[in-house]
Amino acid sequence: MKYLRVLFVFIPISIVLELMHASPIFLFVASALAIMPLAGLMGEATEEISVYSGPRIGGFLNATFGNATELIISFFALKEGLFDVVKASIAGSVIGNILLVLGASMLAGGLKYKTQKFNRGVVDVSSSMLLFAVIGLSIPAIFTHTINPELLNTSRYEGLSVGVAFLMFAIYLLSLYFSFHTHKDLYGSEHEETVEAKWSLKKAVMVLVGATVIIALESEFLVGSVEPMTKAIGLSEFFVGIILIPIIGNAAEHSTAILMALKNKMDVAVEIAIGSSLQIILFVAPILVFLSLLFTPMSIVFNEFELISLIVAVLIANKVSGDGQSNWLEGVQLIAVYIIIAISFFII
Amino acid sequence: MKYLRVLFVFIPISIVLELMHASPIFLFVASALAIMPLAGLMGEATEEISVYSGPRIGGFLNATFGNATELIISFFALKEGLFDVVKASIAGSVIGNILLVLGASMLAGGLKYKTQKFNRGVVDVSSSMLLFAVIGLSIPAIFTHTINPELLNTSRYEGLSVGVAFLMFAIYLLSLYFSFHTHKDLYGSEHEETVEAKWSLKKAVMVLVGATVIIALESEFLVGSVEPMTKAIGLSEFFVGIILIPIIGNAAEHSTAILMALKNKMDVAVEIAIGSSLQIILFVAPILVFLSLLFTPMSIVFNEFELISLIVAVLIANKVSGDGQSNWLEGVQLIAVYIIIAISFFII
Amino acid sequence: MKYLRVLFVFIPISIVLELMHASPIFLFVASALAIMPLAGLMGEATEEISVYSGPRIGGFLNATFGNATELIISFFALKEGLFDVVKASIAGSVIGNILLVLGASMLAGGLKYKTQKFNRGVVDVSSSMLLFAVIGLSIPAIFTHTINPELLNTSRYEGLSVGVAFLMFAIYLLSLYFSFHTHKDLYGSEHEETVEAKWSLKKAVMVLVGATVIIALESEFLVGSVEPMTKAIGLSEFFVGIILIPIIGNAAEHSTAILMALKNKMDVAVEIAIGSSLQIILFVAPILVFLSLLFTPMSIVFNEFELISLIVAVLIANKVSGDGQSNWLEGVQLIAVYIIIAISFFII
Repeated sequence: MKYLRVLFVFIPISIVLELMHASPIFLFVASALAIMPLAGLMGEATEEISVYSGPRIGGFLNATFGNATELIISFFALKEGLFDVVKASIAGSVIGNILLVLGASMLAGGLKYKTQKFNRGVVDVSSSMLLFAVIGLSIPAIFTHTINPELLNTSRYEGLSVGVAFLMFAIYLLSLYFSFHTHKDLYGSEHEETVEAKWSLKKAVMVLVGATVIIALESEFLVGSVEPMTKAIGLSEFFVGIILIPIIGNAAEHSTAILMALKNKMDVAVEIAIGSSLQIILFVAPILVFLSLLFTPMSIVFNEFELISLIVAVLIANKVSGDGQSNWLEGVQLIAVYIIIAISFFII
Repeated sequence: MKYLRVLFVFIPISIVLELMHASPIFLFVASALAIMPLAGLMGEATEEISVYSGPRIGGFLNATFGNATELIISFFALKEGLFDVVKASIAGSVIGNILLVLGASMLAGGLKYKTQKFNRGVVDVSSSMLLFAVIGLSIPAIFTHTINPELLNTSRYEGLSVGVAFLMFAIYLLSLYFSFHTHKDLYGSEHEETVEAKWSLKKAVMVLVGATVIIALESEFLVGSVEPMTKAIGLSEFFVGIILIPIIGNAAEHSTAILMALKNKMDVAVEIAIGSSLQIILFVAPILVFLSLLFTPMSIVFNEFELISLIVAVLIANKVSGDGQSNWLEGVQLIAVYIIIAISFFII
Repeated sequence: MKYLRVLFVFIPISIVLELMHASPIFLFVASALAIMPLAGLMGEATEEISVYSGPRIGGFLNATFGNATELIISFFALKEGLFDVVKASIAGSVIGNILLVLGASMLAGGLKYKTQKFNRGVVDVSSSMLLFAVIGLSIPAIFTHTINPELLNTSRYEGLSVGVAFLMFAIYLLSLYFSFHTHKDLYGSEHEETVEAKWSLKKAVMVLVGATVIIALESEFLVGSVEPMTKAIGLSEFFVGIILIPIIGNAAEHSTAILMALKNKMDVAVEIAIGSSLQIILFVAPILVFLSLLFTPMSIVFNEFELISLIVAVLIANKVSGDGQSNWLEGVQLIAVYIIIAISFFII
C-alpha cells in the first residue's frame, strides 16, 4: 500500500484546483486520487491503535473505520441531496467488493498458486449474513416496485426505510457481539500473530484524525464536482455512483486483498471482500438513512439495477464461499462479469 | 406442547361469541386461539396411532395429517371463494416455516448450545425437493405475469393449474415411496427409538376424529370472520392470509421444532420446517386446486409477493441445509427477515 | 448410440420430401429424425480422431464439435433471419441439457443404483462457470428490459451484444487453456483409460466431413420448414426454438449421458450436461452473434422466458453439483420441472 503514497501530491493539487475554480473533471480526478492514499493511511492508523487497545476494541475500530471513507463521501453526497448517487454507491460498493476486489485477488493469487484453498468457517458466516442482509434489504424495494412507484415518497415508506435501517443496524451490533464475544474463537486464527506497534499511540490517533479531516475536505470537493462534471462529459450520475465512487472508496481494500492473495492468505482476501460488503449494507447504509433525517429523509428503496447488482453479489459470494477454493479462471470470470455490468451501466 | 392446552377454553368461548354474533375481531382471535392446541392434539393422536400401525403407515399418517389444520382452514376459505386468502396462506406457510419456525429454533437452540450441527443427508434431499417444487410452481406464475395478466382466468390457464397440481401431487406420492421404501435407511436415525404408546388405539382414533371435527368448526368461525374483521380494522385480506393464518396453522410445528432445538436435535427442527413447507406445496396446494373444482376452479398462479416469498424461502432453506450448522445469530437474522417481510406486507 | 442408426433411413426420405415439396410437417419431422443419428456419428468420428491426435487436440476437437449440430442448425436459422428461433434454441439447449438430459440420466442410473456419487471437483468448476456465464449473459438483457424495450434495436445495443459475445468467447478460450494446460490434472481421471482406435484416421476424417455436410443439408430442410409448419399447425416459432430444436440437437448428448449413468459414471453424465450448456453459452452463442454480422446483426438480449430458463438451469446445476450425489427421485423432479416448462411454453 506504500506505493499509493505518491498520490498524496494530489491533496495540494486538488486544493489549488478548487481555489482556481478549475474544470470539474480535473477536480473530480484530483480529489479522487487524493482520497485513495488517505483511505489507506486511515486503515493503517486504525490498526496501530488496535495494537494498543487490545483485540476487542481494535476489532470494533477496524469494523467501524473500515468503510469510513465511503461513509464520508456519502455524507457529503447526502447533504447535497444526491440520493441517487448515494444509493448507487452503496450497491456499487457491494458489487465492486465481490466482483472486482475478489476477482483481482483470485486472479493475482491464482497466477502464483495453482489452487488456493480457504477455510470455509468464517467465510460461511459472512456469506450467510450477506444473503440474509440482501434479502432483507431487497424486500421493501421489490414490493415497492411491484406495487406503484408513485407511492415511493410517502411518509409510510419513510417509516419502512427507517424501520429496516434500524433492524439492519441492530443485526450489525449483534454480529459484532457474535464475533467478539460468543463466537470469537471462530475468528481466532487471524488474531494469532502478536503484532508490535510501529507508531506511538499519540501518532496513530493524530494520523487518524488528520486523515479523516482531509478525506472530509476532499470528499466535499469530489461530491461538489459530480454534478457539473456529469453535465460536462455526458456521464450519468448513476454511473458515477455505482462504478466510480466505489472504486475510489475501496482502493485500500483492493490493495490489501490482492496483497493477501499473493501471500496465499485467500481466507483474508475473501473475508475482506465479503465482510466489507456486509459492513456497507448493515452499517453504512443504515447510518446514512439515519443521517438523512437531518436533511431530507432518504428512502432505503433501491432501483432495479441496484437490486440486480446486490443479488448478483449474493449469488457469487455464496458460490465462492461454498466451494472453498479458487483459481485464476474464477478470478477472470468475476472480472469479466464486472466489466459487462460496467459497460451496461455506461450504455444506459 | 402441553402448556398450549389452557387455550382449550377458547373452544366454548368462540362458540358463545358466534352464537352472540359478537364482533368479528373477537371471534377471529378466539377461534384462532382454539385451533392452536387442537392442532397440537391432532399431531399427538397421529403419533399414538403410528405406534400401533408400524412405521410405514405411521409415517404416511404423519405426512398427511401434519398439515391437516391448514388444509381444513383453507378448505373453508375456498368454499367462501376467498382465493386470495388461500393462496396467500400457502405462500405464507412456506415462508413462516422457513423463516419463523426455523429462526426461532435456531435462536432458542443457539442460546443454549454454541453451535448446533445437523446431518446434511435428509435435509439435503428435502431442500433439493423444495428448490425443484418452487421452480415448478413458479414457472406458470412467472410466465403468466410476464405475458398478460388478463389471461389469468381463461380456461387454458385452468388446465395448466390442474396439470401442475397433478404433477406436484404425483411427485408427493413418489417422495413417500422414496422415503418409506427405496431410501428408508436415509431416514433411519429418526425412527431408532422404540416408542411405547401412551394411549389405547381406540382413544387415539377418537381424539383424532374429535380434534378434526372441532378444528373444522373453529375454521368455519375463523374464515367467516375474516371478511368483516378486515373491513372493521382496515387490515388487508392478503395480510391475514400470508401472516396471520400461517401462524395459527403452524403453531404446533412451531413448538415442536423449538423443543427439538432445545434438545440439540437440530436435524429434526430443520426437517420439520423444510418438510412442512414441502408438504404445503406438494400436498396441500394440489389438493386445494382439486377441491376447488367442486366450487369455482382456483388457479395455481401466485402473485408477485407470494413468488418472492417462495423464492426467498428456497434460497434460505438451501443456504441453511448447505452449511450443516447453525447458531443464534443465524436465528436472529431469519427472524429479522421475517419481520421486514411482515412489515412490508402490513404497509402494502 | 448404435440403435439410432436405423434413423439414417430418414436422410433419403427427407430429400425426397423436399424434392416433392411435401407438407412442411413431414419435412420437419423427417429432417429432425435424420439429424439425430448424424449428430451421434459426428461425435463418434471426433472421438476416433482424438485417439490419433492425442488428448490435447482431441479435447479441443471434442469441445468444438460437441455442439456442431446446434451451431449448424442455428446458422441456417440465422441466415433466414429467424432470430427468435435462434435465441430460443440457445436458451432451450441449456435448459434441455440441465433438466432433461440430466434428469433422464439420474432417473435411469437411479433405477439401477440406489445412490450415485460423483466427484465434485470438475463439476464444481463447470457449475461455477455456468453461474458466471449466465449472470454475464443476463445482465444486458435484464437492464434492457427494465429500461425501455424500444431501445433494443439501436446500434448502441448492437455494440453491447458484440462486446459481451467477445468477452464470452475470450472466457471460452481461457477455459480451454485452463482445462488442457494449467489445470489438466483436474480432468485426469476421464482420460485414464487408453482407448484404441476402431477406425483408420482417414475413415474418421471422411465420416466427420460427410456427417457435417449432410447435417448442413438436413438443417436447411429443417429450418426451411419451420415457418410454414408453425403456421400450418398453430405452434409458435418460439416453442419450436426452445423445445423442439434443442431436443433434436441434443439427442446424441442425451443417449451418451444416459449410457454413462447406467455404467455408474455419474461424473461424466453430469459433466456432459453442464459442460454442454457452457459450450452453448460461451462458444455457440458468441459465434452466432459474430456470424450474424454477415447478415443482419443479432442482439444477445434474451426475452424474459429465456432468462427464466437460464436462471433455473443455473440454480439447478449448482444444487446438483453441490451435493455430489443423485437418486431416481431427483431425476423425476428434474423431468417434472421440464414438463411444466414445456407445457407453459406450449400454452403461451
